[in-house]
Amino acid sequence: MPAIEARLKEIGVTLPTPVPPVANYVPFVISGHQLVVSGQICAGLDGKVAERHQGKIGGGLSPEVGKEAARFAAINVLAQAKAAIGDLDRIARCVRLGGFINCTPDFATLPQVMNGASDLMVEVFGDKGRHARTTVGVANLPLNCAVEVEALFELAR
Amino acid sequence: MPAIEARLKEIGVTLPTPVPPVANYVPFVISGHQLVVSGQICAGLDGKVAERHQGKIGGGLSPEVGKEAARFAAINVLAQAKAAIGDLDRIARCVRLGGFINCTPDFATLPQVMNGASDLMVEVFGDKGRHARTTVGVANLPLNCAVEVEALFELAR
Amino acid sequence: MPAIEARLKEIGVTLPTPVPPVANYVPFVISGHQLVVSGQICAGLDGKVAERHQGKIGGGLSPEVGKEAARFAAINVLAQAKAAIGDLDRIARCVRLGGFINCTPDFATLPQVMNGASDLMVEVFGDKGRHARTTVGVANLPLNCAVEVEALFELAR
Repeated sequence: MPAIEARLKEIGVTLPTPVPPVANYVPFVISGHQLVVSGQICAGLDGKVAERHQGKIGGGLSPEVGKEAARFAAINVLAQAKAAIGDLDRIARCVRLGGFINCTPDFATLPQVMNGASDLMVEVFGDKGRHARTTVGVANLPLNCAVEVEALFELAR
Repeated sequence: MPAIEARLKEIGVTLPTPVPPVANYVPFVISGHQLVVSGQICAGLDGKVAERHQGKIGGGLSPEVGKEAARFAAINVLAQAKAAIGDLDRIARCVRLGGFINCTPDFATLPQVMNGASDLMVEVFGDKGRHARTTVGVANLPLNCAVEVEALFELAR
Repeated sequence: MPAIEARLKEIGVTLPTPVPPVANYVPFVISGHQLVVSGQICAGLDGKVAERHQGKIGGGLSPEVGKEAARFAAINVLAQAKAAIGDLDRIARCVRLGGFINCTPDFATLPQVMNGASDLMVEVFGDKGRHARTTVGVANLPLNCAVEVEALFELAR
């Protein structure tokens, strides 16, 4: 079993079947040694965004639930990465995550929410999972989901 | 006539004269085999944002008008890409679009709005136009415009 | 003294000690010839966000103060870039800045705010500092800071 698959099993993470794109875009593009993963929402294993992960952090949703949603979004990023390259061991580095948090205008502890995604990357990939990151609070996200995460990976040469 | 120019003509798209930058930034940068296009607002052929494309989707503007605005933003992306590389046939792939939708906090059908940009890329470039994408709803955009689109292209090697 | 260090001294810019990451992410990643710098908030030389740089442009904060905050965020980008590569003369090009402005939903002169960051890049690097740029207004930012700036640099080959 490839090392990253074994690691996912060890930490109890199951990757969902990636949802096929519903529009004229694709969930990932490989360009040279870069893998670009489209913004992934915090859908669960069943491909649906749970009610508890819909809405605004600082409004109906707590930061803890937001962190959980960020982890789900990151799991979907990994599912798309696996669909893109087959074997996650081919990832040389998680270069960057972009984190978009659906929040009220007065909610400011955005980094703690995004840590749900960042922590997963490091749990899964170790030092290769340590990434640059940009986290911002937005007015809304697709399907009212709480968190959306996009990613850039470097592939092994 | 280059193939992409012919295709633009066929689908009735006229590229505007790209607007020169009004600040200390430039509308595009080529770095290695990547062409990075600055966020383009939904200005029309005259370089101005029509009144109907100013404001917030979910507020004064309908999703249909938003989709139209997204198409305009994507047309401006193409105009800048052409200014950057001369011949759009040099584009090997539209790698990624970033879509920023000016919306009210309760408007959630953001993907449908952004499809106005994505659809154009695929109309123009075919499979090379199928891109990774991140769509988020934001508090506001330059000049109160409804949609802003940024792009990353891979150039033929 | 390296040219860029001399230039910083000439224009009176002191780079702060970069703040170590407080979470499972890193302030920069080098991938091939690209240097990706994480979103930097508008903290001052003491590593803290001044009260005058907390809040929303168009709300408590004026566009002029926002521009000042954008310059601080860009200074922090440079501090991280220096930590990443040691000598800023290794930068071949500032490829892209992403500017996130914490603003009220009705504040639209976002480009003028972001010019605080863009102007600094050109002051410091000259033509190599002329970058592609995306500027959007967001619902909130980490620590209620007024401006966050992320960057992509190309390193000399």
